[in-house]
Amino acid sequence: MDRKNRLQEDALEIIRYAIQENLPDRALRKALSEKPLPGPLTLIAIGKAAWRMAKTGVDCLGSKITDGIVLTKYGYSEGPLPRIEIFEAGHPLTDENSIFATQTILDRVRTSPESQRILFLLSGGGSSLFELPVSGLGLNDLKEVNDHLLKSGASIHEINAVRKRLSEVKGGRFARLAYPRPISAFILSDTLGDRIDNVASGPVSVDQTTSKEAFAVLRKYSLNLPQHILYAMERGSPEALPGVEAAIIGNVRYLCRAAGKKAQQLGYSALSLTTQFDGTAAECAKILTLVGKEIASSELPVSSPAAVFIGGEAVVHVRGKGKGGRCQEMALLASKEIVRWDRLCFFACGSDGTDGPTDAAGGMATGDTITRLEEKGLNLESFLQNNNSHEALKAVDGLIVTGPTGTNVNDLYGVLVGK
Amino acid sequence: MDRKNRLQEDALEIIRYAIQENLPDRALRKALSEKPLPGPLTLIAIGKAAWRMAKTGVDCLGSKITDGIVLTKYGYSEGPLPRIEIFEAGHPLTDENSIFATQTILDRVRTSPESQRILFLLSGGGSSLFELPVSGLGLNDLKEVNDHLLKSGASIHEINAVRKRLSEVKGGRFARLAYPRPISAFILSDTLGDRIDNVASGPVSVDQTTSKEAFAVLRKYSLNLPQHILYAMERGSPEALPGVEAAIIGNVRYLCRAAGKKAQQLGYSALSLTTQFDGTAAECAKILTLVGKEIASSELPVSSPAAVFIGGEAVVHVRGKGKGGRCQEMALLASKEIVRWDRLCFFACGSDGTDGPTDAAGGMATGDTITRLEEKGLNLESFLQNNNSHEALKAVDGLIVTGPTGTNVNDLYGVLVGK
Repeated sequence: MDRKNRLQEDALEIIRYAIQENLPDRALRKALSEKPLPGPLTLIAIGKAAWRMAKTGVDCLGSKITDGIVLTKYGYSEGPLPRIEIFEAGHPLTDENSIFATQTILDRVRTSPESQRILFLLSGGGSSLFELPVSGLGLNDLKEVNDHLLKSGASIHEINAVRKRLSEVKGGRFARLAYPRPISAFILSDTLGDRIDNVASGPVSVDQTTSKEAFAVLRKYSLNLPQHILYAMERGSPEALPGVEAAIIGNVRYLCRAAGKKAQQLGYSALSLTTQFDGTAAECAKILTLVGKEIASSELPVSSPAAVFIGGEAVVHVRGKGKGGRCQEMALLASKEIVRWDRLCFFACGSDGTDGPTDAAGGMATGDTITRLEEKGLNLESFLQNNNSHEALKAVDGLIVTGPTGTNVNDLYGVLVGK
Repeated sequence: MDRKNRLQEDALEIIRYAIQENLPDRALRKALSEKPLPGPLTLIAIGKAAWRMAKTGVDCLGSKITDGIVLTKYGYSEGPLPRIEIFEAGHPLTDENSIFATQTILDRVRTSPESQRILFLLSGGGSSLFELPVSGLGLNDLKEVNDHLLKSGASIHEINAVRKRLSEVKGGRFARLAYPRPISAFILSDTLGDRIDNVASGPVSVDQTTSKEAFAVLRKYSLNLPQHILYAMERGSPEALPGVEAAIIGNVRYLCRAAGKKAQQLGYSALSLTTQFDGTAAECAKILTLVGKEIASSELPVSSPAAVFIGGEAVVHVRGKGKGGRCQEMALLASKEIVRWDRLCFFACGSDGTDGPTDAAGGMATGDTITRLEEKGLNLESFLQNNNSHEALKAVDGLIVTGPTGTNVNDLYGVLVGK
């Protein structure tokens, strides 16, 4: 196998391993084996990975789980589970079924014995699935606020600061409703950074945002909301949540850590620059390829063979009507930066296996990607201008295809530097 | 001293040390002490640092230097040197004096004994200072080609590929004219990467560009040049230069290395991501602050206290009419990324001590920079929109002022992470 093929094979193996270590079943099984739980337990699983996490819970804990509810996205249930009720509801937009299922969960918890432990399994998507507006507000009120916030250009952090105020379950309020029942929460996080109160808007986490911040967001973006919504926003969130134990079992940091571990097993020095990347695809391509080139020319900051990673979720400004996603676009942008650098292999891959509206998970670029495009009479710039990265990478065998993986812990971006 | 002040003091000490280690006198003195040269020597010093390098050469080697010529920018000579003739000429644009001085240097070298060694001291600015058009072309032809190239949007590498073809001294041609006289060259580099043929267009380096590439540049940017210029472009450059020894004694990689050394002495883990940064100020601010935040939250990729560096030369797209430079703008952009991160201190500093048309060398940002601007009733965004970083940083004591340093090995960008 020549160097280029070896690098590409290694990149794929690193990606596969990192995703596998962050699959809901694998990650939860590992966490439960490390921390045995006393029964009896009521299982509450919420999010896009809820079914798989519930299945693993039932498999591992058996009859310790006396009952439970799964709340997941339409089409994400894979069949019945013993002693577990299954609900499907709206994602990314809350719908009537979200509210009905949430109400059912709250009733179940509040009517269980006060000593009954809640096994709370949370994954991405929970924000819209698990929702009940505060008293006095309806689904339409939430929609209205949401629409305003999304159009305003507010950050996800700012949006959450407002949304948490209007919910009976977000911002730690679910845990308070469950009190004094103890809660053991296992969280597969799809958000960047360490703030678990951001995952599904933090139903079992102390809220780090305040009413004051929420009102500041409204002022900042000149949002005018009806009086009854403003009134609801004044209520504070719980400041402490006794009896709650929450552990992250997978997130983008774990993704990068797993990637680094596999890279080292394959003989690479591994370096993870950040796991909170939220800049543009171009910025990420630029810095990773620069560090790769630095290593190739000076053996610094680490010696070759080397693997450098960034975790996070890049943004792409869509101008064209082509087919692609942020990872594929990043790979194509990277191909411009590494022309003729035959010791480099760049890759970008979504852990969910779905990059944009395509059947690819991401893309790869090597020193000859552009030459090979040109040999086929294809012009890189026109693909970039139309955000048509999928077609370009397809033409040069640069796609990474995993199929939907069942997890979502953001993206892994990386560059391998061969000897 | 509180943490913030300590970080700022440390940043300044790191910057001062890194620049000092790359001053022409210091760097050349060190190199000459490591590699004793046999006399007799003819000293030829070219570039913005030529006078200082020649002075150091004379100080270190004394009467081994039998004669010599300094060719530097107008106003950059600091007085007579024994046995050395001094010329000043045009920079950044070649003028009649450049050509006269270059001709004088060629005459001097060609009439010296064939065993006479040339001590060749080269620094940035040499491209315009050291120039003689190939036979059949005049200064106006060079100007015309240069104007076309600069307007076309061609990269510096592409521009050099063309310019080298039209010169009697660039692309290794000076060394060939001097042959068989041995040449010992010491180079203070102001270009990114390892290609010493790019420094002053490489008078003593084998040309890495070809006629074919030069013609491809003309086609790529649809440049129509007169027939006699096209004819001149066909001549090849020397493919080998026997008798030439060239050593880089300072460049941006040395700058980062010195910064890392001082940081370690001060107790920081040091990490240099790349020394070839040529992206935007925003990209650089983004990645350095992200890595800083990653270290502050996870003690990875290195443990705190930590210093992370990038070397290179960022670009800024000037839209406004304010006062600033790429380093000051980068510091201001970084201040947005690290709001309330009180363990971080960001800095960006030009090694020449001059950032844009200001008396500052660069700028610093900390977690309270924006708050302090706001306390003074100043709005960050309007400063950024007008590229008015100088005034903003001045208001919050965020300027780095060194005065002109006498060297130019690009910029040092960094973030310090306290405990």
